[in-house]
Amino acid sequence: MHGTSNGEVGAEARERIDFWAWFGYTYTLDFSLLHTEGQARAGVLHTWRGDVPTPCFMPVGTQAAVKAIAPRELLEIGTRMVLANAYHVYLRPGTDIIREAGGLHAFIGWEGPILTDSGGYQVFSLSDLRGIREDGVEFRSHIDGSSHVFTPERVVDIQRSLGSDIMMVLDECPPYPCESGYAAEANRRTLRWAEICRRRLEQTAPLYEAEQALFAIVQGSVYESLRQESAQGLVGMGFDGYAIGGLSVGEPASEMYRITEVVTALLPSARPRYLMGVGTPENILESIDRGIDMFDCVLPTRNGRNALFFTRKGKINIRNAEYATDFSPLDVECSCYTCRKFSRAYLRHLFKAGEILALQLATIHNLTFYLWLCEEARNAIRDKRFSSWKKQLLAELSPEQADVES
Amino acid sequence: MHGTSNGEVGAEARERIDFWAWFGYTYTLDFSLLHTEGQARAGVLHTWRGDVPTPCFMPVGTQAAVKAIAPRELLEIGTRMVLANAYHVYLRPGTDIIREAGGLHAFIGWEGPILTDSGGYQVFSLSDLRGIREDGVEFRSHIDGSSHVFTPERVVDIQRSLGSDIMMVLDECPPYPCESGYAAEANRRTLRWAEICRRRLEQTAPLYEAEQALFAIVQGSVYESLRQESAQGLVGMGFDGYAIGGLSVGEPASEMYRITEVVTALLPSARPRYLMGVGTPENILESIDRGIDMFDCVLPTRNGRNALFFTRKGKINIRNAEYATDFSPLDVECSCYTCRKFSRAYLRHLFKAGEILALQLATIHNLTFYLWLCEEARNAIRDKRFSSWKKQLLAELSPEQADVES
Repeated sequence: MHGTSNGEVGAEARERIDFWAWFGYTYTLDFSLLHTEGQARAGVLHTWRGDVPTPCFMPVGTQAAVKAIAPRELLEIGTRMVLANAYHVYLRPGTDIIREAGGLHAFIGWEGPILTDSGGYQVFSLSDLRGIREDGVEFRSHIDGSSHVFTPERVVDIQRSLGSDIMMVLDECPPYPCESGYAAEANRRTLRWAEICRRRLEQTAPLYEAEQALFAIVQGSVYESLRQESAQGLVGMGFDGYAIGGLSVGEPASEMYRITEVVTALLPSARPRYLMGVGTPENILESIDRGIDMFDCVLPTRNGRNALFFTRKGKINIRNAEYATDFSPLDVECSCYTCRKFSRAYLRHLFKAGEILALQLATIHNLTFYLWLCEEARNAIRDKRFSSWKKQLLAELSPEQADVES
Repeated sequence: MHGTSNGEVGAEARERIDFWAWFGYTYTLDFSLLHTEGQARAGVLHTWRGDVPTPCFMPVGTQAAVKAIAPRELLEIGTRMVLANAYHVYLRPGTDIIREAGGLHAFIGWEGPILTDSGGYQVFSLSDLRGIREDGVEFRSHIDGSSHVFTPERVVDIQRSLGSDIMMVLDECPPYPCESGYAAEANRRTLRWAEICRRRLEQTAPLYEAEQALFAIVQGSVYESLRQESAQGLVGMGFDGYAIGGLSVGEPASEMYRITEVVTALLPSARPRYLMGVGTPENILESIDRGIDMFDCVLPTRNGRNALFFTRKGKINIRNAEYATDFSPLDVECSCYTCRKFSRAYLRHLFKAGEILALQLATIHNLTFYLWLCEEARNAIRDKRFSSWKKQLLAELSPEQADVES
């Protein structure tokens, strides 16, 4: 919608951006769909700050930092894009400080693309919600109880201050389970707010060097008709990309997969699709299979800090006594620093002793695993072997569930 | 005392070690004294695992890990040798696990030299002390209350299991203040235990590839005659190096400096001197000026985790409101990752938000500062300008105290 819309450009996006910049032309997000296998897609998101091969996983930097890992380590393990939470950053340190710092990238020392969520989800899940109005939501900060209002306009302005490469619209995320009447009402508001966000985007300009894209969020709980209404409404307005929100909020995985299928079938193939807050390695594989390009989730980082490691042979709780004298690496096929240099016995010791290094090494490994998962999925789609690869990996990840899930 | 004793060898120690290894000759710790200015010394510790320029600072890896920093980061900031606490590692994960891992270096992923303290200090300061006997100390673990006995023999055996490059004798560290009668009694035991450790060393062999050196510990509280008795007794026995223990335990800095002077005057110049557990940047500069070569202290890492940063212009508590919009680096002259990539405002935000990354970045910077301090001291001694450099730096580090301390 902004800038050029040439969908054929590949790795030379950077040069093209520089070329257009010569003419004073600002470039925004573009997407190249390169390979498909069934519904599964491999492509490239072209952002002003670099290309992001898809399917991609975005580590979550809730409070303007990915927990227990430094930006250079994120780069080292292959991170292309990170997510930050507008709600958290708005409350602390506050958008004034971010603006004075020259934007979020400068503030946190991350030069790659950043996606910021709108804060909608956090307002509904974290804050003391005071009321949903037609023009926005009123809430109290979970940090100090102070009162705030998020309107669609405000949320775009906040993300302009942050300077994120991909902004998200303000949405209302209904809980699960949710009555269809309430879900329909929330759906209507989300559509209206999306339209207002879109208009605000056009009325405002980026505060820093880079153009900012805007993604819409499809809601509608587990109701197919509401999801269809939401997707069709948003596609009609036209956005840089489309997210699916309101999933992974407690519903069974089968419901998540069903709704994902319903929605992706209605989204334009030329635009990226982002499944918000999902999920387990199994969830990610199944969602890629249903046409999703982008993911974010706290699972790898949070589980890591709780001594739970993802490996190609399934999950490991490193606190278990069986690892006390296990001097093999966590995952012999993994190329991360943790697996190259340290043993399971040492990792167990670090957790038992309460050492911070345990959290650092766990975060490096678990994020590496998630990034590997998406990269391997991409390679498999390119080679038209995604379906068989997925089936085999699911069997290895959790042998007892493979037959049910695949 | 072990291996060759050629004191003239410089940077080519490694080649020499390899050369002797051809003849089946194992090499232990050697020390080259290269430059002096007054009592201040610049030299090189030659260990089997690499040279350590002195004066040197050893980051403290209490529980077989330096808190909040990975081995590769320690290397990056210029760490040559780390310290580990035999007491902690013995209790958890236990020496059996370390032996099965192939020694402490293999277990923790640190290939440079390691110095292990004997556990004497920890037994007296951390554990539930059950009794001091002529043959050792009985104590209960601070972790699970289990009963243990450390004898001088046991302590050498434990450090053989760890495979540290420099082992320390078992000593009795009296508190401050301490009656002279008790200090004399403790002194006598420490001398006797040192002799037993020395004999045990000769009766046993390293369990891994590298030779292990043994340092004695001079005790005697703040009593000059006891310190002299201790130093002369230990020097008479002959050790690879000499530590000064029982300082920085609550006595005034002036007492620490006085005792350090008394002791270093009695130590052989050809052997390294190590002031245990010291201290502030000021303490380190004053102690180098009194002939100390080696230091360890938890101050840079612990202070860092409490948001206290060392800079060339004095200490900074990054939580202070004045740093909220201070986008300058912590220390503009510092070359560490933290100072190169992040602002004071961001570091403050990380601490306020309780982010683990705050601890990581603080640790990197504060350790870099301590390593820089020792390296600069070394350069200054080499160039015969240590005295003036020290005076100037002390004035910058804490303007109000410089006149008193220097």
